[in-house]
Amino acid sequence: MKAFVLDGGFGLENLKLRELATPAPGPGQVRLRMLAASLNYRDVLMARGLYNPRQRLPLVVASDGVGTVDAVGEGVTQWRLGDRVCPNFVQGWVSGEPTRDKLRTSLGGPLDGTLAEYRVFDASSVVAVPAALTDEAAATLPCAGLTAWSALVTQGRLTAADTVLVLGTGGVSIFTLQIAKLIGARVLVTSSSDEKLARARALGADETINYRTVPEWGKWAKELTAGRGVDHVMEVGGAGTLEQSLRAVRIGGTISIVGVLAGSAPALNLLPVLMQNIRLQGVIVGHREGFEEFMRAIEHGSLTPVVDRTFPFEDTVAAFEHLASGSHFGKVAIRIAN
Amino acid sequence: MKAFVLDGGFGLENLKLRELATPAPGPGQVRLRMLAASLNYRDVLMARGLYNPRQRLPLVVASDGVGTVDAVGEGVTQWRLGDRVCPNFVQGWVSGEPTRDKLRTSLGGPLDGTLAEYRVFDASSVVAVPAALTDEAAATLPCAGLTAWSALVTQGRLTAADTVLVLGTGGVSIFTLQIAKLIGARVLVTSSSDEKLARARALGADETINYRTVPEWGKWAKELTAGRGVDHVMEVGGAGTLEQSLRAVRIGGTISIVGVLAGSAPALNLLPVLMQNIRLQGVIVGHREGFEEFMRAIEHGSLTPVVDRTFPFEDTVAAFEHLASGSHFGKVAIRIAN
Amino acid sequence: MKAFVLDGGFGLENLKLRELATPAPGPGQVRLRMLAASLNYRDVLMARGLYNPRQRLPLVVASDGVGTVDAVGEGVTQWRLGDRVCPNFVQGWVSGEPTRDKLRTSLGGPLDGTLAEYRVFDASSVVAVPAALTDEAAATLPCAGLTAWSALVTQGRLTAADTVLVLGTGGVSIFTLQIAKLIGARVLVTSSSDEKLARARALGADETINYRTVPEWGKWAKELTAGRGVDHVMEVGGAGTLEQSLRAVRIGGTISIVGVLAGSAPALNLLPVLMQNIRLQGVIVGHREGFEEFMRAIEHGSLTPVVDRTFPFEDTVAAFEHLASGSHFGKVAIRIAN
Amino acid sequence: MKAFVLDGGFGLENLKLRELATPAPGPGQVRLRMLAASLNYRDVLMARGLYNPRQRLPLVVASDGVGTVDAVGEGVTQWRLGDRVCPNFVQGWVSGEPTRDKLRTSLGGPLDGTLAEYRVFDASSVVAVPAALTDEAAATLPCAGLTAWSALVTQGRLTAADTVLVLGTGGVSIFTLQIAKLIGARVLVTSSSDEKLARARALGADETINYRTVPEWGKWAKELTAGRGVDHVMEVGGAGTLEQSLRAVRIGGTISIVGVLAGSAPALNLLPVLMQNIRLQGVIVGHREGFEEFMRAIEHGSLTPVVDRTFPFEDTVAAFEHLASGSHFGKVAIRIAN
Repeated sequence: MKAFVLDGGFGLENLKLRELATPAPGPGQVRLRMLAASLNYRDVLMARGLYNPRQRLPLVVASDGVGTVDAVGEGVTQWRLGDRVCPNFVQGWVSGEPTRDKLRTSLGGPLDGTLAEYRVFDASSVVAVPAALTDEAAATLPCAGLTAWSALVTQGRLTAADTVLVLGTGGVSIFTLQIAKLIGARVLVTSSSDEKLARARALGADETINYRTVPEWGKWAKELTAGRGVDHVMEVGGAGTLEQSLRAVRIGGTISIVGVLAGSAPALNLLPVLMQNIRLQGVIVGHREGFEEFMRAIEHGSLTPVVDRTFPFEDTVAAFEHLASGSHFGKVAIRIAN
Repeated sequence: MKAFVLDGGFGLENLKLRELATPAPGPGQVRLRMLAASLNYRDVLMARGLYNPRQRLPLVVASDGVGTVDAVGEGVTQWRLGDRVCPNFVQGWVSGEPTRDKLRTSLGGPLDGTLAEYRVFDASSVVAVPAALTDEAAATLPCAGLTAWSALVTQGRLTAADTVLVLGTGGVSIFTLQIAKLIGARVLVTSSSDEKLARARALGADETINYRTVPEWGKWAKELTAGRGVDHVMEVGGAGTLEQSLRAVRIGGTISIVGVLAGSAPALNLLPVLMQNIRLQGVIVGHREGFEEFMRAIEHGSLTPVVDRTFPFEDTVAAFEHLASGSHFGKVAIRIAN
Repeated sequence: MKAFVLDGGFGLENLKLRELATPAPGPGQVRLRMLAASLNYRDVLMARGLYNPRQRLPLVVASDGVGTVDAVGEGVTQWRLGDRVCPNFVQGWVSGEPTRDKLRTSLGGPLDGTLAEYRVFDASSVVAVPAALTDEAAATLPCAGLTAWSALVTQGRLTAADTVLVLGTGGVSIFTLQIAKLIGARVLVTSSSDEKLARARALGADETINYRTVPEWGKWAKELTAGRGVDHVMEVGGAGTLEQSLRAVRIGGTISIVGVLAGSAPALNLLPVLMQNIRLQGVIVGHREGFEEFMRAIEHGSLTPVVDRTFPFEDTVAAFEHLASGSHFGKVAIRIAN
Repeated sequence: MKAFVLDGGFGLENLKLRELATPAPGPGQVRLRMLAASLNYRDVLMARGLYNPRQRLPLVVASDGVGTVDAVGEGVTQWRLGDRVCPNFVQGWVSGEPTRDKLRTSLGGPLDGTLAEYRVFDASSVVAVPAALTDEAAATLPCAGLTAWSALVTQGRLTAADTVLVLGTGGVSIFTLQIAKLIGARVLVTSSSDEKLARARALGADETINYRTVPEWGKWAKELTAGRGVDHVMEVGGAGTLEQSLRAVRIGGTISIVGVLAGSAPALNLLPVLMQNIRLQGVIVGHREGFEEFMRAIEHGSLTPVVDRTFPFEDTVAAFEHLASGSHFGKVAIRIAN
């Protein structure tokens, strides 16, 4: 079978299509014929050696994907051939609190990822996909989708009474917008592109702002909430955005840290965190039971993930480059098989 | 000023339109010119002496209403003349846990209620109303609306992944349906009337059943959730429904007790509660800060309360009789002034 | 190897010491040489056919126990030979919400139990035991201990500010007393025996009452809390106690349903549940991660389980009879091996 | 009456004993004859103009204190003459979420503080004190005590299974140690003084370390928790400690930000916050209902606050200087009256 493998060193130039042995499922495992994958900024950092410089190579890349069960190991009763499922990004995290051991089992590094024709996973680490979703849409859910769900719902307990500030229009940000609207909240979105802001409004964003034009968007957010501040900020940025996020958030509010640009180390003034009873909450994707909940919510609300563009399997490197360019809106997908 | 007063004994025949002195706001208080009220089954029980036989008379009846601030007492800074507000049902419950002292301050008994041309309330016990709502719609919110919000959101922490079973189509039930849909959940509704079920579907109910035709609706709910059971039951019934609710709810699920027909004392088999880790949660309306959250959710989601029928002020007794008949769908309102 | 097996029909007379094949651990499993077990009222009901009349026989009885790892299957890395561990009562419940499938994996029925010289469990379903505990003490933890922990801490979020009312002095009740004192709460205890009440006070109970002498112990509890009521009732009784528990609990308080005498079906008046915002919460033991937390708490607080009496393995039937008599205080243990 | 007033400019040299008019309670208010006060580092910063340079002067200083009710205003029913009470630090925060308006009502700036012979407070903003506490001990509770309680219990939901790392041995730190032990948790303490560490162990600290000797105390904490990390860090430091705190805390753990040295702005690397799902939680003291809970916990557990030293009223400036020197262990109190 074929797979995209990072080998011989970091850098997109070392990302190659290889022929590997097709794996067989052991006891308690299932084999998936992979249909589609999607990319996260994490995958770009990983390929470039910036995410974890000690990552062992070769590595099958990418963290997200969807496939159909095409072989089951001994003792597997919950899945049948043909079931369409997503592997959970953190394979060993079924529920409960995260631990070091659980977090060491993530796909696309340290474990092999999804950009392969066949992959074997524990039967307890995959999740059924709603029938209404296309393969490309389903492939976007495990990282970006579940991160937004975990931040807003599992950890954030967001309600319809809340206002959310979404930074940017990448994968996690657009899922945040969609989930927040699904649960009745009010949503504010920032971007440097008026065209992307128009698309965000079409997806339901209540208020948008171009942070190039208005660098003081923290003040803008506070004004739009009658001086109160937003209840939740989805912070995907690095140096520079946190200061404005702290201005935007209400007393007692939450800033979810769901992404950090590599190398950034902003000087954080902890005084507003203390004086305003603010919570900064790191979010490292989520567990399988949370993923199952998210799948039910998708089905209840007919949520359709936003696929920016789909690349053929053989153009995987181009897909990485497209994501790295930052010109996308929503998710970048790769078609592996039909 | 005029008010509907229960005097000389319980019974709707003792509900009379009276002339009372117009009250003046003291320090920290506001006076409302009442615009509209709405009725709850509690008000019927109260008038009949079945809710609290020791309630002192005379009593201005009704628990829900809306008015405009037409006079403010000394030291009131948060309200201006003309503000349209609802008094919170439990006047002394601003936030936090309920206590005996807080719960003794509810309107329409033990304290005077809303069916009067003017009423004085503490400035800290009223809540601003979204501009988009009609007066009649706003008048339905304090009891039935806030009860559903408290049960689902404040106490129940319902998410878009959950399925809710709503019993009946009265005031609390229809708010439960609307709020649950607003936050992306799946909703199942029971009724004895196919016509009411059709209206529930028009409001977004995903599945409905006539409990006359299918008395085993607990089993029906379980089948519709792939054998898992619903996450939350909104139990408004009395004897007879709880057994089916216990069959409908999932392991680890919640049954909110939001209404009980007077005199009912069902034999509750606690074994399923224990063996299936079920929670039975009483819900006694809610606090002012929860009401403010609910108001924001209404605004975010453009929720429109369902007013079954509006009676003129002078036909208040007919409004009580209409509610008592059980033929309504949603809320019964009374217009007090324009 | 030897095991106590219920065979040929229900009833203690069918509980026999049998010779069974010594099991071998499969992949991902560990074999325990069992050291001690303890009994729960559940085991008595199970043996008598009152817990689940459809339980398949033969059945190795008892739900609680402790052993040392004496063989490990393929792929097991977290345990070493000689580790002393307790199997979690609900084998398949690692963390998160309970489900029907998870709850079907409990020991001592439907699955074989702990009264055997050797037992094989999933490596992910056993928990390390603090070194300071005797084997008999450790054997009491999985059911009674974890039930009290789950009710008070995991579900009940009890704090040092709270007052707990404990009914009786059996296994769960004494653990409730000990855990509540460990976390700084105030504890009230009921019993029909003044001698047992004296022992409860020696374990830290702040207030005790003989319910034979004072049948209105609900009122007593309310008076001791300045009319406020207790925050949490640990309800182990059946018909008759719930009415007093509802009088004892505060507005907004919790009644944990942790035991129900078989056949009881009290007429529950739901009105106080509704009007006082009370929560009735069923508690079906708990998950493995909660058990690990409980073990850490035991170690932090040097909690010593109360073993009423230890029977030799061959006197297992006498141990069942002793528990059934109700004369015990705390837990009844059985020594299997040294 | 006499009061210590900051007037004419910031700086301890402007802190003067003045004669002011004795206040009279208005409707809904109580007057306290103040018995004792205690100091917080906040008071030192406030006096020096470093806490809020825009604070209006003159200002009666200090945030904590205790007094006896010696006059009640109209309509006050919950207090009687002679009741011994503490004013809540944030006067307007009774319960629920903090807001800007609520947080603007703190004592010792912006509102007048406790270092006066008489003070008037809203009857709803004072809390009864357990009889067993001395006046000096009671005076330490409103800021330092409630901050530790809010961080650990109200917001942190700490259990007996958890391990807490306490930085230093000042007021909040020693309360953290005492409360954590009261609720059965394990406690690690850092200090630069071996003598203070010995005193911390005498108060129940399980493990202690001198951070001068071992600057890598984050690693030390992780080793003491078998590589897992502590569940909760009570972060009172400024620049420099946060990096070690992030090393000490477990994946998914909490760092409570309860104090920040003025002017500090550490460069916070958000990557570990994200990658390890860490929560940074600001804690701005707490609400009155939380204070009442804390008072009950103190009574249940016979907690005795640690008073480092008590100064006579006239030596208030020396008390400020003593606190500013950092040589104290626990709280610095001031006796106002007998």
